[in-house]
Amino acid sequence: MKAVLAYSGGLDTSICVKLLQEKYDCDVITVIVDVGIPKEELVEAEKKARKLGVLKHYTIDAKEEFVTEYIHKAIKANATYEGYPLSTALARPLTAMKVITIAKKEGADALSHGATGKGNDQFRFESMFRSIAPEMEIIAPIRELNLTRKESISYAKEHGIPIPVDLEKPFSIDENLWGRSIEGGILEDPWTEPPEEIFQWTKITKQKPETVMIEFEKGIPIAVNGRKMKPVELVIEMNKVAGSYGVGRVDIVEDRILGIKARENYECPGAVSLITAHKHLEQLVLTRRQLRFKEIVDSTWGELVYKGLWTEPLRKDLDSFIDSTQERVSGEVKLKFSQKNCSVVGRQSRYALYSKEMASFDEKASDLVEGMLRFHSLQSELSKKAG
Amino acid sequence: MKAVLAYSGGLDTSICVKLLQEKYDCDVITVIVDVGIPKEELVEAEKKARKLGVLKHYTIDAKEEFVTEYIHKAIKANATYEGYPLSTALARPLTAMKVITIAKKEGADALSHGATGKGNDQFRFESMFRSIAPEMEIIAPIRELNLTRKESISYAKEHGIPIPVDLEKPFSIDENLWGRSIEGGILEDPWTEPPEEIFQWTKITKQKPETVMIEFEKGIPIAVNGRKMKPVELVIEMNKVAGSYGVGRVDIVEDRILGIKARENYECPGAVSLITAHKHLEQLVLTRRQLRFKEIVDSTWGELVYKGLWTEPLRKDLDSFIDSTQERVSGEVKLKFSQKNCSVVGRQSRYALYSKEMASFDEKASDLVEGMLRFHSLQSELSKKAG
Amino acid sequence: MKAVLAYSGGLDTSICVKLLQEKYDCDVITVIVDVGIPKEELVEAEKKARKLGVLKHYTIDAKEEFVTEYIHKAIKANATYEGYPLSTALARPLTAMKVITIAKKEGADALSHGATGKGNDQFRFESMFRSIAPEMEIIAPIRELNLTRKESISYAKEHGIPIPVDLEKPFSIDENLWGRSIEGGILEDPWTEPPEEIFQWTKITKQKPETVMIEFEKGIPIAVNGRKMKPVELVIEMNKVAGSYGVGRVDIVEDRILGIKARENYECPGAVSLITAHKHLEQLVLTRRQLRFKEIVDSTWGELVYKGLWTEPLRKDLDSFIDSTQERVSGEVKLKFSQKNCSVVGRQSRYALYSKEMASFDEKASDLVEGMLRFHSLQSELSKKAG
Amino acid sequence: MKAVLAYSGGLDTSICVKLLQEKYDCDVITVIVDVGIPKEELVEAEKKARKLGVLKHYTIDAKEEFVTEYIHKAIKANATYEGYPLSTALARPLTAMKVITIAKKEGADALSHGATGKGNDQFRFESMFRSIAPEMEIIAPIRELNLTRKESISYAKEHGIPIPVDLEKPFSIDENLWGRSIEGGILEDPWTEPPEEIFQWTKITKQKPETVMIEFEKGIPIAVNGRKMKPVELVIEMNKVAGSYGVGRVDIVEDRILGIKARENYECPGAVSLITAHKHLEQLVLTRRQLRFKEIVDSTWGELVYKGLWTEPLRKDLDSFIDSTQERVSGEVKLKFSQKNCSVVGRQSRYALYSKEMASFDEKASDLVEGMLRFHSLQSELSKKAG
Repeated sequence: MKAVLAYSGGLDTSICVKLLQEKYDCDVITVIVDVGIPKEELVEAEKKARKLGVLKHYTIDAKEEFVTEYIHKAIKANATYEGYPLSTALARPLTAMKVITIAKKEGADALSHGATGKGNDQFRFESMFRSIAPEMEIIAPIRELNLTRKESISYAKEHGIPIPVDLEKPFSIDENLWGRSIEGGILEDPWTEPPEEIFQWTKITKQKPETVMIEFEKGIPIAVNGRKMKPVELVIEMNKVAGSYGVGRVDIVEDRILGIKARENYECPGAVSLITAHKHLEQLVLTRRQLRFKEIVDSTWGELVYKGLWTEPLRKDLDSFIDSTQERVSGEVKLKFSQKNCSVVGRQSRYALYSKEMASFDEKASDLVEGMLRFHSLQSELSKKAG
Repeated sequence: MKAVLAYSGGLDTSICVKLLQEKYDCDVITVIVDVGIPKEELVEAEKKARKLGVLKHYTIDAKEEFVTEYIHKAIKANATYEGYPLSTALARPLTAMKVITIAKKEGADALSHGATGKGNDQFRFESMFRSIAPEMEIIAPIRELNLTRKESISYAKEHGIPIPVDLEKPFSIDENLWGRSIEGGILEDPWTEPPEEIFQWTKITKQKPETVMIEFEKGIPIAVNGRKMKPVELVIEMNKVAGSYGVGRVDIVEDRILGIKARENYECPGAVSLITAHKHLEQLVLTRRQLRFKEIVDSTWGELVYKGLWTEPLRKDLDSFIDSTQERVSGEVKLKFSQKNCSVVGRQSRYALYSKEMASFDEKASDLVEGMLRFHSLQSELSKKAG
Repeated sequence: MKAVLAYSGGLDTSICVKLLQEKYDCDVITVIVDVGIPKEELVEAEKKARKLGVLKHYTIDAKEEFVTEYIHKAIKANATYEGYPLSTALARPLTAMKVITIAKKEGADALSHGATGKGNDQFRFESMFRSIAPEMEIIAPIRELNLTRKESISYAKEHGIPIPVDLEKPFSIDENLWGRSIEGGILEDPWTEPPEEIFQWTKITKQKPETVMIEFEKGIPIAVNGRKMKPVELVIEMNKVAGSYGVGRVDIVEDRILGIKARENYECPGAVSLITAHKHLEQLVLTRRQLRFKEIVDSTWGELVYKGLWTEPLRKDLDSFIDSTQERVSGEVKLKFSQKNCSVVGRQSRYALYSKEMASFDEKASDLVEGMLRFHSLQSELSKKAG
Repeated sequence: MKAVLAYSGGLDTSICVKLLQEKYDCDVITVIVDVGIPKEELVEAEKKARKLGVLKHYTIDAKEEFVTEYIHKAIKANATYEGYPLSTALARPLTAMKVITIAKKEGADALSHGATGKGNDQFRFESMFRSIAPEMEIIAPIRELNLTRKESISYAKEHGIPIPVDLEKPFSIDENLWGRSIEGGILEDPWTEPPEEIFQWTKITKQKPETVMIEFEKGIPIAVNGRKMKPVELVIEMNKVAGSYGVGRVDIVEDRILGIKARENYECPGAVSLITAHKHLEQLVLTRRQLRFKEIVDSTWGELVYKGLWTEPLRKDLDSFIDSTQERVSGEVKLKFSQKNCSVVGRQSRYALYSKEMASFDEKASDLVEGMLRFHSLQSELSKKAG
């Protein structure tokens, strides 16, 4: 049997290569999908894969696609789930798609991933696998053999799989262009303050406040401080800028797909600052009815993507709604960064529904306002009268 | 005719006294409702009212009632409207109620307020007046005579009404225990950064980070750092603590009741920090279905109160829902304050739905998870199959 | 001044012609927009208009546009408002658009309608007028002069305006392709049963039950009993078929835009039967997440259109959502008609998410179902455990 | 091991007795919970259970509790799920509770039910079992042994379990006071019209139209045609009346909990007519904001109960909301029954928000309506202007 594995170079997926070979009797093709991985890690991963005796190894640069087809949708949807800006959740369907594509090209029989039976990623991988390639088998060695972290480490040692040095720090890390997640160990206790050492992207290196202007075109950020940037470049830039002020930390208790509550820590400087800017621009150009309805749409979008339901038809329907609203979400937003803080201090748009004349207290009000007053709370009044 | 006026001691309501006397031929009773007004201002206001020749003047301490009957409901509802924690909006119904009570006691014929025809407060006052005392006349001199700020100042000068020194700064201020709003002048332009000088409550006076523990009982904050506090005292304390870190500034473009978009600035240090803490505690003890539904309830509650629809029966229905959810919202939250930042770094509760064993990656997963996977995205799969 | 009036040939708009001429000093151009008006009435209306001395008269056939651009959207949205399938509400924006078009062509200064100050139509006309032609004046004689029905009749008699014979029956009727509304007189009392005589479209003329098959393509009905029909023809056919069984009566207490509750009676045989069929087809092809979210979308769509907010950007956004869902709403529905009853007794589609194998109790269940059970109510269980 | 089985006297649960004894080595206590079962069936079931050698048998009359604690809540929530008024779904938690109560009293080790692995009832039983008695084992023989209907029949024959005569008709029936469900066989095909023979409760026996007046007190029906009735009696009466006109048939494609779409047929004459009446009364006494929000609450309530999540805390929260709204849902509704049709033709209440003076076209409108018009579509207008 030939299996294509979503590979990361980390401990779990390295073990999977061996398990697939030994316990499942498979030839293994590893695919590492680059959605924002340092170059040296990609090289390292390939080396590691080859050492593990894979049939083939693919490194796929999906950064551009990740930003334009996933992150941009997420910005337009102000996408969060219970406060989490969806970094890992957002990348999984793309990774799964690439694995499927290779599997079809290579005539493989099975699709494989290294997720455990406790988390969310198993759902995100498998719902894509089942929807897009229902004819293929799914093999999830870690989950199926129900390996704990400790058991994984033993297995690795036994099979000469190199163990990352930072395994001493018992944190499980995942990162891509849209954010970095840190979980495990003492972080699991929701009462314990996360130690400073877990943070990599949001160390404060700048003290002096700075104003950064973001330009949006139809809901998509296209320029920073007047400089047009390519999609990937802009996200990287905002991660750097916001990160240097310590902006973008998220510390929540989150409802996993299985219904388990878990404490999670994230660093999402680019996501947090871009979504903040985007929301404030929407407040300027969308009607209040649009804003209020979009709240529900956005929240539902975030939930679907968190749950790995990228192929749920409702997701596409919500995107149609969102794209329709974004026609006018063009303009500029001024973000003021200071230590651990990112605030909007200005916004403008050629589509602003703002009218200085109407809003200003220096101008006359309409004589007609009395009519609004007459009817504003009519039913409340009738209701009080009815006793 | 005898009119009872909601009095603040400020320019607009002082003019109203004169207008009621001269243009509406009324005997005027002024009522200043203390929902968090510095004592010297109360004294000053009374003096001013008497100088204007009012029939009677009442100073009513409503701080306790404001906190227990309004602010506590707002905390339980995580109440905001487009990002604004409802400070003024929340106090208006209470002020209106007190005015009505005095009017009934004094056998008055009319209820009066000093709001203009552009803003929200006219709606908030009048919907209470109409619902609770439909038999009384409503007189709104500033709105009815459609006075601009400039005209008000002229009128005041002509009639010897003392003009506050800070009128040079053309900002319109309103404050109560739950927050402070600043609007007008250059702030009306949504693109202009608000100058530091407009802020009073959120000047940074502390640099060293500090962790503050808030204890909640059924959704209501009852202790700070282990010290039980009376309702009013606790809110004042949190305004002070959060304010000293510069936390609680809100800068938004907001949809006024009339549909006009306006740029607004607020300082709500206590509100922002207490609601943040409250939300995180809810994430620990409520089911995800409760959390998700409560989002819609909270958002609707905030909209009703913003619009002055305190007497709308739906408000009471939503409170019933909310109170039911808050039965278990008891526990502690650790807030970490640093410059301009307030983050939750820990939360615990005897009602936590958190289970270490279930969440931890050090423990075995359930063998049964495969069943969940089988059905999780079933309809997405069928949908893809259907073409 | 030159005014273009939305004319119906009825009492109110005939009076408006005279009022526009005499009280507003206007040259009047009348426009009757045919959204399903019997031919003889169109002829009659034109004659009447000319007799009243109008400058010009236009008869515009908008039936096709009404069905394809309005009714089809309404079917896709399963559009109702508190049970009312929106007949009049749906046609007003189209009528208003046609009036505006003529006004621009004729270089008119004002737009006019004959709606009173109590109902909904003033909002529907004027929100279109204000949005699309803000430069033109709006004249609403009946509302502005605040004429009651009695006063209107007197005025008509004084000015030799012919009064319809059925004025003795004090019912106010409005009809178009999508339905017929009857209000006024004894019908205003919500406790009184409507007399049979008010119904025209839903007199029972058939006794024998009959099965009618409707074919939909992307949410739009395109054939009846296998016979492809043009849009207008199909709606007329379904009005006839359903009407002959007495199907389509709606008797509700409805919240008018002003907040007034009013008892309303409608006959909408085509609308009721087509929307019923459409909903059942959706249940076969949409996922439950789509169905549930679309409930909220549909309800919001119905409310916007009822309130005359056709130009509200949210309406267009909702249409984008809806159109995305309708991609698969193709298939056939069997409607069984009997006396006063229309039931769906069969539905099929090439996009059905139905799987006989999965649904049937004659087939084995999945062994994996236990996994679903394990997690289905997990949080309820934890919640009970927490006490 | 001692197991308590939710027993019905039907084929599946009779087989379960034997399976529990033979395959699971249990002493079996059978409990039949009467939520509306003909007396002779109760007697028959007991006889059958004893013949199967049970340790003990309980017959529990839960009709009163079913109506007051479940059906009344359902009426107040206008409870349906995709058109289905929840009959079986509504009774399952009560049945499960009674089984648990007996199990605790008898010191049993296990709880058991006869539901298959395809349907909804396994979820409804087990979520109650897990939430209320997590210490007990759950045994679901039919599901665990994955028996098809055919296999069940063979097993019954082998073990001398009497097979009901109507097994030839391959329909699976469930009935209680709130409705009757029929599924299986040719009914599984969503395109096939259900044969008349499957219906028992909705055979047309009356031809002459009849008006029936229902009186509600706080959302609960308390009298029919002026005659006060006990809760159970009233439901039985309405089943009879509505059933005799053929009212209450529901034919839908429904999304089962597992995500499987299934065609289902129901007869719910009492439920359909009482919920119809209740909704119309709500339209008279609730504000439109209440009505609109309650739509979402009701829909969510129906979904929770359908899914067997009776112990989900959100259900209780929704009930608090609903009870608050029902304070004023008191009054009378006239239902007009004719062949297959039940329509509301009148409604009245001392809490009606209806005002004849405001609604009537014979009365003057308010001069103030122009003010409403000015602001009604303000944002749509600004939006058009913005281009």
